[in-house]
Amino acid sequence: MDLSEAALQIVAASHAIEARGWAPATSGNYSVRLDETRIAITASGCSKATLSPEDVVEVDMLGRALGEGRPSAETLLHVTAYGLDASIGAIVHTHSVANTVLGRLLEGERYVELSGYELLKAVPGVTTHSTRIVLPIFENTQNLSALAAALRAAWISLDWGDAGPSGYLIRGHGLYTWGADLASALNALEAFEFLLTCEIEIRRSRV
Amino acid sequence: MDLSEAALQIVAASHAIEARGWAPATSGNYSVRLDETRIAITASGCSKATLSPEDVVEVDMLGRALGEGRPSAETLLHVTAYGLDASIGAIVHTHSVANTVLGRLLEGERYVELSGYELLKAVPGVTTHSTRIVLPIFENTQNLSALAAALRAAWISLDWGDAGPSGYLIRGHGLYTWGADLASALNALEAFEFLLTCEIEIRRSRV
Amino acid sequence: MDLSEAALQIVAASHAIEARGWAPATSGNYSVRLDETRIAITASGCSKATLSPEDVVEVDMLGRALGEGRPSAETLLHVTAYGLDASIGAIVHTHSVANTVLGRLLEGERYVELSGYELLKAVPGVTTHSTRIVLPIFENTQNLSALAAALRAAWISLDWGDAGPSGYLIRGHGLYTWGADLASALNALEAFEFLLTCEIEIRRSRV
Amino acid sequence: MDLSEAALQIVAASHAIEARGWAPATSGNYSVRLDETRIAITASGCSKATLSPEDVVEVDMLGRALGEGRPSAETLLHVTAYGLDASIGAIVHTHSVANTVLGRLLEGERYVELSGYELLKAVPGVTTHSTRIVLPIFENTQNLSALAAALRAAWISLDWGDAGPSGYLIRGHGLYTWGADLASALNALEAFEFLLTCEIEIRRSRV
Repeated sequence: MDLSEAALQIVAASHAIEARGWAPATSGNYSVRLDETRIAITASGCSKATLSPEDVVEVDMLGRALGEGRPSAETLLHVTAYGLDASIGAIVHTHSVANTVLGRLLEGERYVELSGYELLKAVPGVTTHSTRIVLPIFENTQNLSALAAALRAAWISLDWGDAGPSGYLIRGHGLYTWGADLASALNALEAFEFLLTCEIEIRRSRV
Repeated sequence: MDLSEAALQIVAASHAIEARGWAPATSGNYSVRLDETRIAITASGCSKATLSPEDVVEVDMLGRALGEGRPSAETLLHVTAYGLDASIGAIVHTHSVANTVLGRLLEGERYVELSGYELLKAVPGVTTHSTRIVLPIFENTQNLSALAAALRAAWISLDWGDAGPSGYLIRGHGLYTWGADLASALNALEAFEFLLTCEIEIRRSRV
Repeated sequence: MDLSEAALQIVAASHAIEARGWAPATSGNYSVRLDETRIAITASGCSKATLSPEDVVEVDMLGRALGEGRPSAETLLHVTAYGLDASIGAIVHTHSVANTVLGRLLEGERYVELSGYELLKAVPGVTTHSTRIVLPIFENTQNLSALAAALRAAWISLDWGDAGPSGYLIRGHGLYTWGADLASALNALEAFEFLLTCEIEIRRSRV
Repeated sequence: MDLSEAALQIVAASHAIEARGWAPATSGNYSVRLDETRIAITASGCSKATLSPEDVVEVDMLGRALGEGRPSAETLLHVTAYGLDASIGAIVHTHSVANTVLGRLLEGERYVELSGYELLKAVPGVTTHSTRIVLPIFENTQNLSALAAALRAAWISLDWGDAGPSGYLIRGHGLYTWGADLASALNALEAFEFLLTCEIEIRRSRV
């Protein structure tokens, strides 16, 4: 895929995410893998409500800008995931009330486990609700190298449940998830936002 | 009704349901009875946000595809209901936060009973809020034959309250409801989603 | 105002209310006073999502149809309020989750009292948050003559707080409110729906 | 900036805020600094849903109208903030359920403290979630001179946390926030509304 096609896809995805309220202020960043060596990613600090194709920039697999524009401050987390799994074609990172609140409510816990929901079948490889999907919760830090190192370590050593790594939370910050292409990543995003909302509602109502 | 007319109705209904957030990811499936022997139903795994008439396929009363396209994995639950009641002309199945959460909050209970709401008059045959409508909650399973059998058994033996079968929940999965045509099925859907949301709010606030 | 102008206003109001989710299924009804002897009101049982000017009919001050079309089943509650206060020019009746849930949570109580909110200034005649507005809660019944009688009795004998009658709830059913014209009635509706939502949130969080 | 350009910006902002439900009925008011001596501000009592450029009026730094139209009743709070900080270029005041409810839930407390959220980086000058932002909560009064005096006193003597004054609540009334221009003010608004919603959710779920 070339940069201009990826930029159009990212702009459309951004507007869909903005409409859901999952990228308030200038938060949220989205990327698509162009080929083995290049990623298209949203630029740093741009408003997602008015995102245009010019706000999508090209980086290499270490996250260094290949052309004009400053890539998102969180580019390192995107390229780390692309490097860990060659089947990932697109990554979305959002800040919803649900993913922010759940991370903070689970203070002290290192993951959220999802099971028993039919919608878990939206996660690639999952064919039954009788499954167990684990989203790790990393502590937030402005040191992105440390976050990337935590992600690499978890990728290898964490028990991710029945379908391997499919997403993670950063506490009080947001959700990362991905797919083979941007449509699949948005599918996973919709499913996880729905399920995290269900988890909050269920925990609250059982108090 | 012919397939192309039914497909247009289903696409319009799907977009309305998508806008409410009741069919996240690729979830949700919708059908219309064409005549005594044929049903139009959404295809398997298609995104409801981008549903087009080509994503609606034709099946017989046993759920077997009559033309191109693979019908929804849950086709058996649709044809079972059409077989049980000749007055059903359209069926909708949705995954909302409300219907998912309520099924899980009521773990161990086999039905949810709705009464005292004016909006129950949206259910065909109901003319007063002083009524009792029962939605059974079936345990979720990937064995659709077992779910269809449970539905058939409940249809006959369950106390459905004052208006006969009007819908059911699958726990942690979603809601099925229906009507004489797609507009009536959407009416019932709006009413039940509203009432299930009220039930959660009331139970939570009374904690 | 003539019927066709009133019908256009009512259709626009209906679409705005529908978009908020305050008139699920075929619920909700809206009216405008045309002159001393005639009211324009939505027809019985029509879907508010697809309301058109033909769905607005004319009735006299006793609620009897003056032309074609069957007026809303709740017409009697509209004409009763118009008869009680000559300054009322438009009435809206909605079914929101908030107004339904609050009525049921307050089971056994006969009114909800609102005070201390800046938004109370949206109620005509109110110029400070330090006020007390009372919305009576009538028990629901399908006997509209009984409801109309309860409204007439309350209008005269109830302590409505600092601004006189501005709206009421029917338990588990919905909200009635009004204004000098339809824009004012919608203003009052927005204010009361907001305030009833705040009341639920505050009561729940204080549990 | 001239008045007509500011009016267009304010109308666009108003429609975006209206769509979020943060300015019910005729509530909400918005302003832009035109130069050292003039402010553009929404007129008193106009509906934000139908705001047009003619509803934006010009005032001097004491809040006195410079042309036609009656400025918002809360103009004094706008000009007071502009007078206290020359870097403020735009101010927005909204009435959301979240900001209304949080002010009332915190009855007796004089501020809300936000920390640990990544989204706090939307506040100008903040570069880490490990920060502490204080929003004072002023008691509501219809005496705007008293509110303006409270704001001036707090501006100087309050501990606003790590980034200086960025917004405040009036209890049971609403939120004021600002930025170097209207886009920045809307950014801050989105961030604070999100964070206040998170605070309510977290407090409620921890009950």
